[in-house]
Amino acid sequence: MNLLNNLSASYVVSGYWSNRSYKDAQPFGAIKLAASSESSNFKKIPNVDSWSFDKDDAYVHFCQNETIHGVEYFDSIKLPKVPLVCDMSSTILSRPINVNDYGVIYAGAQKNIGPSGLTIVIVREDLLAHADKKTPSTFNWKIQSENNSMINTPSTFSIYMAGLVFEWILKLGGLGEMEKLNKKKSKYLYDYIDEDDFYTNDIEIKNRSRMNIPFKLANDDLTKIFVEKAEQEGLYALKGHRLVGGLRASLYNAMPFDGVECLVKFMKDFKKYNT
Amino acid sequence: MNLLNNLSASYVVSGYWSNRSYKDAQPFGAIKLAASSESSNFKKIPNVDSWSFDKDDAYVHFCQNETIHGVEYFDSIKLPKVPLVCDMSSTILSRPINVNDYGVIYAGAQKNIGPSGLTIVIVREDLLAHADKKTPSTFNWKIQSENNSMINTPSTFSIYMAGLVFEWILKLGGLGEMEKLNKKKSKYLYDYIDEDDFYTNDIEIKNRSRMNIPFKLANDDLTKIFVEKAEQEGLYALKGHRLVGGLRASLYNAMPFDGVECLVKFMKDFKKYNT
Repeated sequence: MNLLNNLSASYVVSGYWSNRSYKDAQPFGAIKLAASSESSNFKKIPNVDSWSFDKDDAYVHFCQNETIHGVEYFDSIKLPKVPLVCDMSSTILSRPINVNDYGVIYAGAQKNIGPSGLTIVIVREDLLAHADKKTPSTFNWKIQSENNSMINTPSTFSIYMAGLVFEWILKLGGLGEMEKLNKKKSKYLYDYIDEDDFYTNDIEIKNRSRMNIPFKLANDDLTKIFVEKAEQEGLYALKGHRLVGGLRASLYNAMPFDGVECLVKFMKDFKKYNT
Repeated sequence: MNLLNNLSASYVVSGYWSNRSYKDAQPFGAIKLAASSESSNFKKIPNVDSWSFDKDDAYVHFCQNETIHGVEYFDSIKLPKVPLVCDMSSTILSRPINVNDYGVIYAGAQKNIGPSGLTIVIVREDLLAHADKKTPSTFNWKIQSENNSMINTPSTFSIYMAGLVFEWILKLGGLGEMEKLNKKKSKYLYDYIDEDDFYTNDIEIKNRSRMNIPFKLANDDLTKIFVEKAEQEGLYALKGHRLVGGLRASLYNAMPFDGVECLVKFMKDFKKYNT
């Protein structure tokens, strides 16, 4: 609504959420597929050099991390001329980014920012003024920009909480420190999963998400028991998304290293009692 | 986006907010003025029998209460055939309503429901399926309805708090009791304002809002001092909206009768020291 301006746009499909964006965009104009890793069951991401798009596209859209499929883009991506639009909902604040590389960054708050009910949108200034005339004023970036993002009462509690989270991250040392911590957390869990075949994660190594780690038990009959026993130990939300089954550990900023240690300790015990 | 369906619609303009709706709707189709009380500076509302609309209109839109101008519709309104769409942001839960009289009721949460960041939309079932194909799925009533209003993560904290508010209202005796309390609160303040000419409210008596009571000091030079002194006494947010100036007391559900008594006591003292 804000960018197409009667032009086309190209979408990279690397999992469930980017596919939702690709499908949701269809009614709004000439929406093309830039690349898809569906044939691999989204076990890897389409590499940037495989993306196809036109220099006249209004934008190229991709999702930096797929929370269900557990794949993440880590490379810094720069497209010549065509604005890059990125859904950073599940990666924003997990590591430093170069905001200047993007035309638009958007992110729902509920992963690393604060409570749900808030979306952060960062728009390059020259991209503000292309909204279709049938864009409701609340969703019109130019009008919101002219009104300090408060054309109507915004989600005040979410904004207040986001402010506290920003202060907390700065106090920890900023996004560089956060990245170190997220690398350490995810490496610790992946290393344990890879130790033998009791647990598996079959995502292409270099595309493995730091935020969401889906894994499976070699014996799927144990999955339900794993989830139940884990909850008894205070380890929640480990059931995999129904689309992919298995198990999933989400290691957003709010999860401390201790939490990952607890999970791995539980996984070790679970393995011991079930082999 | 959800109702026009290539038809026309008629809008009643009774103050700032209904005028915003009328203006915001313009790009979406043939939007007509059903009635306006602008010539009275919105000191009264256009009576229902003065509304002009066509039986083929997709809907007639009005706002039940204007928070800036302080006018409110109290009559139960039934339109033959044409669906009635009502912005109840500032009246919902303040008194019983007959939901069946409306095609659509919508209300931002931040007055009587809970924290901002949540909008409640009640749609008559036969009106769910008229959305323009360029309606984003998040705002498409049919899609939301099919997904229990959770096509994506909603504003969870606002919803949780709204639940607590609903329980609180039920514990107080429900909307009938809430209406009695709101009548008592607003009458107490209007009665005092009307005692003499030191304070004035020039809204048509039968249209006077129970939720937002704008009033003026005969001597406008005292307005700024009134606001300052009031704040010193712990009485906040009494400055009138910049569009109308003067003073304004908002008596939403969360304001107890004691609060109105404190305000009137302060107003009495302020008058004594300034006459």
